[in-house]
Amino acid sequence: MKIQTVISPIAFDQIESIEDKIVVVIDILRATSTITTIIDNDAKALIAVKDELSARKYINDNYLVGGERNGETIPGFDFGNSPFDYKKDRVRDKTVVLTTTNGTKCIEMSSNANEVIIGSFLNLAAIVRYLKEKKKDVVLFCAGWKDKVNLEDSLYAGAVALKMPKFDKDDSTLLCMKAYEISKENLFETLQDSNHFKRLKNKGVVKDIQYCCSIDTTDVVPKLKKGLIQK
Amino acid sequence: MKIQTVISPIAFDQIESIEDKIVVVIDILRATSTITTIIDNDAKALIAVKDELSARKYINDNYLVGGERNGETIPGFDFGNSPFDYKKDRVRDKTVVLTTTNGTKCIEMSSNANEVIIGSFLNLAAIVRYLKEKKKDVVLFCAGWKDKVNLEDSLYAGAVALKMPKFDKDDSTLLCMKAYEISKENLFETLQDSNHFKRLKNKGVVKDIQYCCSIDTTDVVPKLKKGLIQK
Repeated sequence: MKIQTVISPIAFDQIESIEDKIVVVIDILRATSTITTIIDNDAKALIAVKDELSARKYINDNYLVGGERNGETIPGFDFGNSPFDYKKDRVRDKTVVLTTTNGTKCIEMSSNANEVIIGSFLNLAAIVRYLKEKKKDVVLFCAGWKDKVNLEDSLYAGAVALKMPKFDKDDSTLLCMKAYEISKENLFETLQDSNHFKRLKNKGVVKDIQYCCSIDTTDVVPKLKKGLIQK
Repeated sequence: MKIQTVISPIAFDQIESIEDKIVVVIDILRATSTITTIIDNDAKALIAVKDELSARKYINDNYLVGGERNGETIPGFDFGNSPFDYKKDRVRDKTVVLTTTNGTKCIEMSSNANEVIIGSFLNLAAIVRYLKEKKKDVVLFCAGWKDKVNLEDSLYAGAVALKMPKFDKDDSTLLCMKAYEISKENLFETLQDSNHFKRLKNKGVVKDIQYCCSIDTTDVVPKLKKGLIQK
């Protein structure tokens, strides 16, 4: 079995035979961390959409809708993009629609994969356990930012791969593993240099970022099935 | 000033205003290490070409021509691709034509840059010194292998950037810096896991790889001018 890391979406085409592989979609700040939280808090399902307009179609009694514009909850929406917005008493048994540009794109691009699961530091050990049990080739798909490499997504890919010593790795994966190895004791501090951190920090979401660096807070493995993300 | 790392050629398009930037072309195993060696050994100039056919046109008394096929010097050529082939007494004052698939491609792609220089571990400190003096934005252009990320090229990008603390860095660069930081004491051992190492090892060029991991053996900075690489 092997692990390949797609270090940004422009490298996704390089993966062959995607239909035999499990794809882990990674968008640490904040999409896949927020999705993990929402599913862990017992939402019935989550639908990831790529923009405000697509989300707006779901504004009715059957859905809760989340999205931000310039760091503020979009008027008419139920939540912003912060994982803290999605408390258990609000999302339990509900279907949540979440706008996420980079994350949604990767989920859509992976649609032919054997399986698509959602990874974050919150469910790191659970993801690793799941992948080991499945015994299939793995693609760690970093959403990045506007098709560019993101430090936090790459470090997470490294974190997953480091825990899977028996899998063969491509050089992208080895690079991420090396970088995570030296960063793992100071994950939050390391991310403070990243460009994404600087962008989000300006919007005052440092608490969100700290939360997204929490490791193994849940065992949930969100999976994509027919457009819905569920336990 | 800033440093951006093009982690594989498919990301090169993401660089804006290339005409204002200095590009360091990086193809550690073995093109840019061999080119550094050839220029250090006082060749008059080097012409990088992308394949055997292009090189063959130069077979005449005015040029020395280097290239390999399946690990052997191509019949009719003067050298293979090993840096050890290019001794000073053979290349001094000569123009050498070298076939290199990935390296040549990057040199051609960079042709609109303000300046193109050739980086390897052999001239690491010299490259850093040169870049600091120029005070321009820098692009570390990793040739990779067949458009994929290469561990050794990424680690070299990290090595350069680590020595340039005053420059802003993009996340690709930060990733490479982290990976180099933990690998620098064991560069050769780290590269043994890389896919390129495994491919070349099968061709018996372990001695070449060890050589390409030697740091600061020369002060030469090969530069591209009108298709010729020179001191």
